[in-house]
Amino acid sequence: MPSKLNAEERAAALAGLPGWKAVKDGTAIAKTFTFTDFNEAFGFMARAALVAEKMDHHPDWSNAYKEVAVTLSTHSAGGVTDLDVKLAGAMNDIAGR
Amino acid sequence: MPSKLNAEERAAALAGLPGWKAVKDGTAIAKTFTFTDFNEAFGFMARAALVAEKMDHHPDWSNAYKEVAVTLSTHSAGGVTDLDVKLAGAMNDIAGR
Repeated sequence: MPSKLNAEERAAALAGLPGWKAVKDGTAIAKTFTFTDFNEAFGFMARAALVAEKMDHHPDWSNAYKEVAVTLSTHSAGGVTDLDVKLAGAMNDIAGR
Repeated sequence: MPSKLNAEERAAALAGLPGWKAVKDGTAIAKTFTFTDFNEAFGFMARAALVAEKMDHHPDWSNAYKEVAVTLSTHSAGGVTDLDVKLAGAMNDIAGR
């Protein structure tokens, strides 16, 4: 099981994840992605869903037209772990292409 | 532009849409779909996204693992229209297969 990052580790990880911030008293990280339209927004979600399923680590996320709001947390660890950092980085990569 | 359904028309439409209910003072309809796992939940979203894009009418929705919570409204009409009823029916069809 992945272990929960402490505040220092979490801050260091966030420094390398543009747009992501700690939420819910530091037990999760979140970012809202804004695209051009629904096609782009859902295309991002489809690609991110495949990564998440492969990792067996899934986002809490919502979509309204061109926006996708994502929250990541590792429930079994009670906070943010390397799994969240890895998935957040993958989402940034997908959105940036 | 589709016209907003009045309360009577909306109630009649909801009677034919199992699981959907009026929310936000009757200006929207909502349903939470629960699937077996993320694979099924996102499969539903992918199919519904294609229908929504074809209709050019998009849901506000969120997903957490096996749950998908959907809210439909026609913003340009300030309430629920036939577009929402049609998309809600299509989502029930997709989820029911």
